[in-house]
Amino acid sequence: MALNRIGQSTIVLPSRPKLVSSAAIAGKKEGEGPLRSEFDEIIEDDLFGEETWEKAESRFQYTAADLAIKKAGLTHAQIDAALGGDLLNQIMAASLAVRELHTPFIGVYGACSTMAESLCMASMLVDGGYLQSAVCTASSHFCTAERQYRFPLEYGCQRPPTAQWTVTGAGSVVVSSEEKLPAICCSTHLTLGRIVDMAIKDANNMGAAMAPAAADTLCRHLSDMNRTAADYDLIITGDLGQVGHDLLLTLMQERGQPLDPARYMDCGLEVFSPDQDTHAGGSGCGCSAVTLCGYILHRFARGELHRVLFMATGALLSPTSTQQGDTIPGIAHAIVLEAES
Amino acid sequence: MALNRIGQSTIVLPSRPKLVSSAAIAGKKEGEGPLRSEFDEIIEDDLFGEETWEKAESRFQYTAADLAIKKAGLTHAQIDAALGGDLLNQIMAASLAVRELHTPFIGVYGACSTMAESLCMASMLVDGGYLQSAVCTASSHFCTAERQYRFPLEYGCQRPPTAQWTVTGAGSVVVSSEEKLPAICCSTHLTLGRIVDMAIKDANNMGAAMAPAAADTLCRHLSDMNRTAADYDLIITGDLGQVGHDLLLTLMQERGQPLDPARYMDCGLEVFSPDQDTHAGGSGCGCSAVTLCGYILHRFARGELHRVLFMATGALLSPTSTQQGDTIPGIAHAIVLEAES
Repeated sequence: MALNRIGQSTIVLPSRPKLVSSAAIAGKKEGEGPLRSEFDEIIEDDLFGEETWEKAESRFQYTAADLAIKKAGLTHAQIDAALGGDLLNQIMAASLAVRELHTPFIGVYGACSTMAESLCMASMLVDGGYLQSAVCTASSHFCTAERQYRFPLEYGCQRPPTAQWTVTGAGSVVVSSEEKLPAICCSTHLTLGRIVDMAIKDANNMGAAMAPAAADTLCRHLSDMNRTAADYDLIITGDLGQVGHDLLLTLMQERGQPLDPARYMDCGLEVFSPDQDTHAGGSGCGCSAVTLCGYILHRFARGELHRVLFMATGALLSPTSTQQGDTIPGIAHAIVLEAES
Repeated sequence: MALNRIGQSTIVLPSRPKLVSSAAIAGKKEGEGPLRSEFDEIIEDDLFGEETWEKAESRFQYTAADLAIKKAGLTHAQIDAALGGDLLNQIMAASLAVRELHTPFIGVYGACSTMAESLCMASMLVDGGYLQSAVCTASSHFCTAERQYRFPLEYGCQRPPTAQWTVTGAGSVVVSSEEKLPAICCSTHLTLGRIVDMAIKDANNMGAAMAPAAADTLCRHLSDMNRTAADYDLIITGDLGQVGHDLLLTLMQERGQPLDPARYMDCGLEVFSPDQDTHAGGSGCGCSAVTLCGYILHRFARGELHRVLFMATGALLSPTSTQQGDTIPGIAHAIVLEAES
């Protein structure tokens, strides 16, 4: 059987599945940041009217998915599957959100790479004709992440300079082959991530843990495609933050595939401004999700972008693995988005 | 674009992706059960030589995946992706296992439906030519599940009669379109699960929480396929246990699609014998994984089965959602396995 593959491990999507709509729902701090005008809604209440932060995170995810589906002009019943996840134990935010959508559910876990993982999966499943329309969704919440991964917020712990600030927000995008729906952009190729672990143990330095995985995926992608970074308007990482961003520039330089800093952007550095005191930048599944589903897809819609590589990164640690002294496995999934030609 | 679909929501796999090899690694108690002769290895040490139960669970998953790949005659480098998950927070067992495989990784979370979810995903991705060979993997461990979901084992808590016993073990199966590899059986159709929540709140009665989801998927599947249960040699649920098993029989009777008890089997009731005192039966991702990758695929190899519906069920609760008073969302993914015609 013919494989939809180019090079060693990059997957081709011959039908160019369409990203037809998206929604980004952001929290208060994110709504005070540089991307404020790109979000569909800014929710000032960190509980979003719910009783707990976890249920609030799920409300963010449901609201984003519901709005993306509505913006596509579709009903929930026309969505063949929701692919989603988050950072919460047992991806509780996604499960409770999709419970309200009543669509088939493919739960994914890729830590902060979730938006890219779900978009890769949905693109293949739509390309292959297994799904006609799918919604991809991811969320994070500062308050749920802090208490799950670090300390109760009430402790008021001091954060080291390498720490990143988990984005409160959710992004959703509808991928569809429905003929009547116009595309914001199309997905054309993807490179699935391998786990790379450079023995980083500091859960407050995720950028360093994830950058080598980003370099691995990016080098494999460029080599498979016989391209250089210059073939992309933008190469976009998910949430490497300042530390990981700088490290990726160094790693790519060392590997002979240098990135032009002017055409390389990290969502973690876009979502907050330096004066918001987040230290190394934003993080969480919601970081790349709101940046993609707000800012980046809007730039496609405005005709400012023609071809980007969206590569969200994940640190596959758990509080348990950290407590047991394990190192932090990193992963990065990359997908090429192109304007409809 | 033509959809690979039959009926409302069942997906067709025109190329009939092959399940080419499998491995089931079971724990001591499972190795004392009725399926003992179907397992590749029985590990007496619940720590599997590791320092913690979580790392041991990961060792189970790695061992199963590695053995399944070897039995297919493939190297790790020939596996285009590992699709896997488990019950641990942040699917730590799968992440640490795939870190050692060095393959691309698609992390999935479907609670105890994980084996069916990963097999559905891999079957579509191989059918569509996006992957040539993929390994699907899932695990659970009694000791990690008890302390994560319930109480420290050291408490010696009494278990109610509706409780199930989390299986210690892992199963892996290689799905491939590689021409030279013979098939144990093929996947031909699948029906993705929707979340069904009948407001069960008792985390010690998962069978009742999952049975309605199983009924939903099964009714949709049979209706889409224009089949009855009699068209299958076996309909196999993942880990409904005695309570869920009986409930599914009742639900299907009520919906006018009665199951023949002689051709309906629940992995949770197969893996342990009543005298092993597990109360309502086995559970956990490992339950359906070791039963599929051991017993069921062996029965295909022996020519005893020609067409089955494998439908693993998941209870998408988290300890946090339980503590916050939420009800238990259930899901069931179904895939048709047929002997190579």
